Amino acid sequence: MTTTRLAWSSPLRPGDEPFRRRHVLDLDDYSRDEIELVLHTADGMKDVLESDIKKAPALRGKSVVTLFYEASTRTRMSFELAAKALSADVVNLTASSSSVTKGESLVDTVKTIDAMGVDVLVIRHSSSGAPYLAAQQVSACVMNAGDGWHAHPTQALLDLYTMRERFGRVEGLRVAIVGDILHSRVVRSNLWGLAAMGAQVVLCGPPTLVPPQWTSAGPRRPEDPPFDRVTYDLREALSGADVVMALRLQQERQDAGLLPGLGEYIARYQIDADRLRWADPGALLMHPGPVNEGIELSSGVMRSAQSAIDRQVTSGLAVRMALLYLVAGGPRP
Amino acid sequence: MTTTRLAWSSPLRPGDEPFRRRHVLDLDDYSRDEIELVLHTADGMKDVLESDIKKAPALRGKSVVTLFYEASTRTRMSFELAAKALSADVVNLTASSSSVTKGESLVDTVKTIDAMGVDVLVIRHSSSGAPYLAAQQVSACVMNAGDGWHAHPTQALLDLYTMRERFGRVEGLRVAIVGDILHSRVVRSNLWGLAAMGAQVVLCGPPTLVPPQWTSAGPRRPEDPPFDRVTYDLREALSGADVVMALRLQQERQDAGLLPGLGEYIARYQIDADRLRWADPGALLMHPGPVNEGIELSSGVMRSAQSAIDRQVTSGLAVRMALLYLVAGGPRP
Amino acid sequence: MTTTRLAWSSPLRPGDEPFRRRHVLDLDDYSRDEIELVLHTADGMKDVLESDIKKAPALRGKSVVTLFYEASTRTRMSFELAAKALSADVVNLTASSSSVTKGESLVDTVKTIDAMGVDVLVIRHSSSGAPYLAAQQVSACVMNAGDGWHAHPTQALLDLYTMRERFGRVEGLRVAIVGDILHSRVVRSNLWGLAAMGAQVVLCGPPTLVPPQWTSAGPRRPEDPPFDRVTYDLREALSGADVVMALRLQQERQDAGLLPGLGEYIARYQIDADRLRWADPGALLMHPGPVNEGIELSSGVMRSAQSAIDRQVTSGLAVRMALLYLVAGGPRP
Repeated sequence: MTTTRLAWSSPLRPGDEPFRRRHVLDLDDYSRDEIELVLHTADGMKDVLESDIKKAPALRGKSVVTLFYEASTRTRMSFELAAKALSADVVNLTASSSSVTKGESLVDTVKTIDAMGVDVLVIRHSSSGAPYLAAQQVSACVMNAGDGWHAHPTQALLDLYTMRERFGRVEGLRVAIVGDILHSRVVRSNLWGLAAMGAQVVLCGPPTLVPPQWTSAGPRRPEDPPFDRVTYDLREALSGADVVMALRLQQERQDAGLLPGLGEYIARYQIDADRLRWADPGALLMHPGPVNEGIELSSGVMRSAQSAIDRQVTSGLAVRMALLYLVAGGPRP
Repeated sequence: MTTTRLAWSSPLRPGDEPFRRRHVLDLDDYSRDEIELVLHTADGMKDVLESDIKKAPALRGKSVVTLFYEASTRTRMSFELAAKALSADVVNLTASSSSVTKGESLVDTVKTIDAMGVDVLVIRHSSSGAPYLAAQQVSACVMNAGDGWHAHPTQALLDLYTMRERFGRVEGLRVAIVGDILHSRVVRSNLWGLAAMGAQVVLCGPPTLVPPQWTSAGPRRPEDPPFDRVTYDLREALSGADVVMALRLQQERQDAGLLPGLGEYIARYQIDADRLRWADPGALLMHPGPVNEGIELSSGVMRSAQSAIDRQVTSGLAVRMALLYLVAGGPRP
Repeated sequence: MTTTRLAWSSPLRPGDEPFRRRHVLDLDDYSRDEIELVLHTADGMKDVLESDIKKAPALRGKSVVTLFYEASTRTRMSFELAAKALSADVVNLTASSSSVTKGESLVDTVKTIDAMGVDVLVIRHSSSGAPYLAAQQVSACVMNAGDGWHAHPTQALLDLYTMRERFGRVEGLRVAIVGDILHSRVVRSNLWGLAAMGAQVVLCGPPTLVPPQWTSAGPRRPEDPPFDRVTYDLREALSGADVVMALRLQQERQDAGLLPGLGEYIARYQIDADRLRWADPGALLMHPGPVNEGIELSSGVMRSAQSAIDRQVTSGLAVRMALLYLVAGGPRP
């Protein structure tokens, strides 16, 4: 209870820098200290969530709009519950039921929302960069809830939180990320975050599902996230890993012809009980969800004691509460 | 105001057993005492709803998710208003706007929701048994808001509440249930509840819309709900009835060929003013809604003084508040 | 803070008549005093919206249902945020996700909603008159959020509020309304309100998009709103105007053949920077949104300093809070 109250008076420790960002767009320029501050604040939120009355007044009188141009259960719901647990008012807008069907542009939509004095605007969009465009137009704080293949920073932060909760640290962890690297916004944000925290990352997937410029000998482009190496061999990727993160096979988004067939993918890249033994015995199995059961993961490992999938969801709520609090409820510089 | 406060301090009378259920799935194993406790608690909720500020703090800091795989106005809205009147946070998920469209299974969806620490999960699903499956997977309290042809326990409880409000008791009432018995989850839950409360029930509908095993001479199966008799003759069914409950003709769900035609149904089974006179002069006319006006009921009786249709809706709010309070807000054993 | 508190104790000045309406259906019978009361109350709401905690307890324990049969972003969201800022509980129903798909009639739907004890019912419907029909059936306060081509009173009030905020008054303003007059519910409600407030109005649009009976020499029908004159010439309309209000070209609703082509419309009626100079140098440019950019307005004027489009949205929130407060939260006669 003391902890809970502390979380509201201030999530900062003496000497900490306050959170100076107005938006949460990606982790590509986050320092380790900033990420630590988010994770530390999430600890306080977890205390609130585990108390009898899961409600804190930090965002009372603030309004949060979720604007989702793509279907979602967990992310939208997680933001909504997080905002309500902080006593904010929440309004949900989806492309299907709004004026978006009248052909209004993203810019006009977000300017309209902004004109209503909304404090936080949570955006998911199929186009990379859409939340950046929005952030330039509004005085609200913009949170990127996933944009195209580009970024999903709150997912990466909840993944970091889940690793830190299990191992007590992220630094030095050996993380294997497996699957459709090419189309994954989750992997891009995770790579920035993992690098900032000092983890070692190996990427693994079919050659057609790894961005070609990440494996070429050419110079690195500034927009390419950091990682340690790429391998097409699952056993090599998993050897000694502390964390095995499987990615969703984005069937709906994937261009035809990038996969010879699901059967071949399963044969070479599905994580099952036998293959998970290639990793460290205490390795954590992660997946951003929803899982294509029997494709990325076997049913067995998905529900095994090593699986952190449900824990990732639980972390997501605490991390999103922390972010909402830091941008809209905390002390402003 | 005293009553209102009492409802929050405790809906139990001295000597009462507390409500020991974690889920509300069906009424098939409810004792009369349990049903009385729900109805008594709903009395307290009605006091809240009739007060100037229709808001009680019983579920403050609790979260309720409605997960509806079928369209609904009244049931979803009733649960949402009930939860909000108790100060809970409510998140609505519908199949059309969520990851359900990505092919996620029911089990994975409810486990995800559960991992967010949700307190109550209200489910409507077109498959019988879906809420039972969910209840096995989650630590949240599951409320069945209608599953396939199987059960709709909150509807049955609000029907019992409406009868008890009108007659002061349910015991000994003669209840005629008319229409599409075969496809009705409403009738199944009502039969369990009416039997527990000591009412006498006659079922009436076209032979093709009555479950064949309910009329055969064979042994009764445990899953078949209790009732007194079946008749295909409306006059015989209505004679002396205290309650006439018409069922919605589930046109959208009904297999082709079960009805010779709507005209014949209307000719033989529609309740109109003349036929309602076959029942007791003070008989109550009920319907779970929405009514197919001019099919199950004539426009006249639907809007007559004998109609309890709007009152059923009003009762629904109080009964659902009572159930939410009993499973998630009351004293736990 | 003092202002904020005043807004809740009473928005009325000594000697003011209280607001005597139960519903907000159109402005056709509003007196100037009534409109002034709404605008004055909205001033108090704006103070709340500009305070640190944008939340007032005026509607705590009240419930507001938005029932939208047409897609909408700004109007639905504006009502939802307004109601929540006043601490009401809000439930959203849209035609696509409710029993409306089961063919339930509007009357049955609103009676069901009403039976749940809802305090305010906000309706948007594609049929003119739908909110009037609803108002006859319910004990809730009905707010018309747009019905067919008929009326959109909250839009007109927010337009009046925006003009009054800019000029300090509405009386005597010269207002030019340009575009698809025929299909616009916005223009009809504005005409009633502008006349009551003493503005002078000129209407301008292609002959096929002006109601023929408004230009004929025949006698005026009682349902026709007042205005000063009609012209088909944009320059004549804009000359000396204080306010230029462009209307949305309702492409989705417009019968084929009423427009020779978009190109011709743009050539003759689009407001661009050059043409806006025909108006008074300090003229305010308004549009109910969403704008068809490059059709009714050029991109330049739409985002110019003269544009009040975002301000209209901001005003909408304050005006809807005022209306909700006056019908459901204020002192009742």
